[in-house]
Amino acid sequence: MTASVRRPKGRPEPVPVAGNGLLDRRALLGRGIVFAGAMTLGAARAGAAAEALNDDAWSREMGASSLPLQTPSRFEKNVVRTLSNPKNEFRNSHARTPHHLLTGTVTPNSLHFTINHSGIPDIDPEKHRLVIHGLVRQPMIFTVEALARYPMVSCMAFVECGGNSAPLFSNEPIQATAQALHGLVSNAEWTGVRLSTLLEETGVEPSAKWLIAEGADSHALSRSVPVKKALDDAMIALYQNGERLMPGNGYPMRLLLPGYEGNMNVKFLRRIKLTQEPAMSMYETRTYSQILPGGKAYRFYFVQEVKSFITHPSFGHSLKGPGFYEISGVAYSGAGRIAKVMVSADGGKSFAEAALQAPVLPKAFTRFRMPWRWDGQPVVLQSRAWDEGGNVQPTRAEFVALRGETKAPPPVLGFPNQHFNSITSWAVDRNGEIKHVYA
Amino acid sequence: MTASVRRPKGRPEPVPVAGNGLLDRRALLGRGIVFAGAMTLGAARAGAAAEALNDDAWSREMGASSLPLQTPSRFEKNVVRTLSNPKNEFRNSHARTPHHLLTGTVTPNSLHFTINHSGIPDIDPEKHRLVIHGLVRQPMIFTVEALARYPMVSCMAFVECGGNSAPLFSNEPIQATAQALHGLVSNAEWTGVRLSTLLEETGVEPSAKWLIAEGADSHALSRSVPVKKALDDAMIALYQNGERLMPGNGYPMRLLLPGYEGNMNVKFLRRIKLTQEPAMSMYETRTYSQILPGGKAYRFYFVQEVKSFITHPSFGHSLKGPGFYEISGVAYSGAGRIAKVMVSADGGKSFAEAALQAPVLPKAFTRFRMPWRWDGQPVVLQSRAWDEGGNVQPTRAEFVALRGETKAPPPVLGFPNQHFNSITSWAVDRNGEIKHVYA
Repeated sequence: MTASVRRPKGRPEPVPVAGNGLLDRRALLGRGIVFAGAMTLGAARAGAAAEALNDDAWSREMGASSLPLQTPSRFEKNVVRTLSNPKNEFRNSHARTPHHLLTGTVTPNSLHFTINHSGIPDIDPEKHRLVIHGLVRQPMIFTVEALARYPMVSCMAFVECGGNSAPLFSNEPIQATAQALHGLVSNAEWTGVRLSTLLEETGVEPSAKWLIAEGADSHALSRSVPVKKALDDAMIALYQNGERLMPGNGYPMRLLLPGYEGNMNVKFLRRIKLTQEPAMSMYETRTYSQILPGGKAYRFYFVQEVKSFITHPSFGHSLKGPGFYEISGVAYSGAGRIAKVMVSADGGKSFAEAALQAPVLPKAFTRFRMPWRWDGQPVVLQSRAWDEGGNVQPTRAEFVALRGETKAPPPVLGFPNQHFNSITSWAVDRNGEIKHVYA
Repeated sequence: MTASVRRPKGRPEPVPVAGNGLLDRRALLGRGIVFAGAMTLGAARAGAAAEALNDDAWSREMGASSLPLQTPSRFEKNVVRTLSNPKNEFRNSHARTPHHLLTGTVTPNSLHFTINHSGIPDIDPEKHRLVIHGLVRQPMIFTVEALARYPMVSCMAFVECGGNSAPLFSNEPIQATAQALHGLVSNAEWTGVRLSTLLEETGVEPSAKWLIAEGADSHALSRSVPVKKALDDAMIALYQNGERLMPGNGYPMRLLLPGYEGNMNVKFLRRIKLTQEPAMSMYETRTYSQILPGGKAYRFYFVQEVKSFITHPSFGHSLKGPGFYEISGVAYSGAGRIAKVMVSADGGKSFAEAALQAPVLPKAFTRFRMPWRWDGQPVVLQSRAWDEGGNVQPTRAEFVALRGETKAPPPVLGFPNQHFNSITSWAVDRNGEIKHVYA
């Protein structure tokens, strides 16, 4: 399927805007630009490839049935979550989103990441209850059915584990896919009842500064949340991309705290207690108190900071010869909207601004895209994001100076291993093979 | 779980803005408003309901494993597509989206509607080819891999069968769910290559006014599309909500024509031929040439016009006593963004403006919401949408005058049975039971 293709006359070459072939993002509009590089791979003159006009087997016979719940093609069976605990041993389980095989911004529910610390409870929604008590004027209990009568709201929001990207704390780059490195973040449209609506009903005593949210899994995972966040954009989420929550994502209800550490978005939510002080629960005092190189620690470090990573091309892909490629990835910030993503093909020496796919929504994935003509020489690809609050994704040098790094491989439960948000670098060699590097 | 609940002092009642209890949409913000009606259903004072504080079985044992592809809870097994041809007989198959059980705007891929005329082909993406030929300067063939190197774009878009809502052509209201009546429309984030980008590569002869798109299913479904649409927002879609297209939705590639009749969004796309004249294929001359009461017909009636329907509450639900409810549904227009949705609870005598969930995107679902206090008396709920082009969803009287109706039940393949976009009315009786009515 390779062929040389004549460039139509009178069409300009796109202009490089940064090192190693990055092109102006307006080239993505495709007006007056030729992506002829792509054709050498798989597009050829039709006259020379009559094979494609022959009918394949599937064009000559009745196809398969429609199913009540449709599933992906058998040819996509590698597009799955990878599991850290497939035998369901008595410990936590991670299921990671295959970002290197996905695009756009929505994570399908089947592929949304999950972490469960004592398996996935099989909750009967008719028996499940949510209690709001503590420093309220009137404690209340809600069934799922009762909640469904309240006013609802929908929002696109990412949820990210505080430990996502932990392998990048290693002092040597781990050779692994974007799924293995960054698969503990996903993005979905959540629908449910604002927590503020329920707290209007219960009333909140002026002395209440925190709430303690607890799940109905046998781990009874609990986290403390400032009342200010609860009254801002917190939601009792009942639906995920239009349908009821997946069991692994908290069915029948979870706390959604857009932009906050995944672990705080308590799943299987059964109790909210308003208090003066935080609970100092295991996850806020042990796991998610970030220990810094000087021995001090961040306490109550909630916001997932501005971050981006390139998904295409990335480790696990290989480039099939020089020519045009689109570089794309996801950017997000717990502080608001993405303002800008800059991409480099020369390991950070020069950058050009990527196109952001509209709509750019707060605390949600934004897909960025950058046109690129690869000349076949070694390059190092990077992305770096800014959010509307002026926060910028740190360079690795800046990040390590502040937060430290560990000897490879990083300990699974060691410190520091939380809130990594520095730049990911992919090196492409002359054969088009891709490695994870630090640059 | 019923209890009388004291209204906290000093909070105002929301003000009715139209007949039978419709409330100002600002009540959805929940500030200073009490939705006490909901509490009579399932929320009660915590002190009187200690049962909820006892641990259920699922809180006392290790839960289930995470799976590579997670699936809904066993308690949600009624949330499935309904099938018109479950035994895959040698005819077409419809699988309808359960709108009465979903909310938000995204349709999960498992529940996206599909219609297939000769089953679902089992296409090997490595062997599939897309040919662009005819009145082009340079015919070309594209593999899936080659297309993946082109610049991509993502957009939220609904796809709707021209025959969606056909049961409403009946002169008597059919008693059926929103799934049965309106289940042939769904909404997803599609990602792929703009068709204009590929046509820039092939070049288009000035004499080309149409293209004929053909699928690789054994039906070889073909439709004619104006070149103007192809150069506007047409896409060769490869991904649906982030992952590869579902087989029933055209894997490995489909033509996406945002806002145009579903059937034109040719699935399993294998050929695009640029021509001077349309093909006059079966679907454009027989099925989708709308016959009007006077015997004339619409020819090439492409745009799915502005429409809305209430999903909550709707047929199949029942209201559990008077009090607060949220009325919600979806609105969309093939001509652009939704500008306004008006809701009535008195069968169209009075209307109030619904809240629209942001972001309001062109040619995509917009979720509308309306606060409502039901007094327990019979009501008739309606929604009516306007788009940014000033188009308005017609009343039933207006629609029937122009387009006619049929004796109940409407013939499955009869005429007229296409492009129904009038108002749907749900009558709630004193028992909270819901019927489909014409009002």
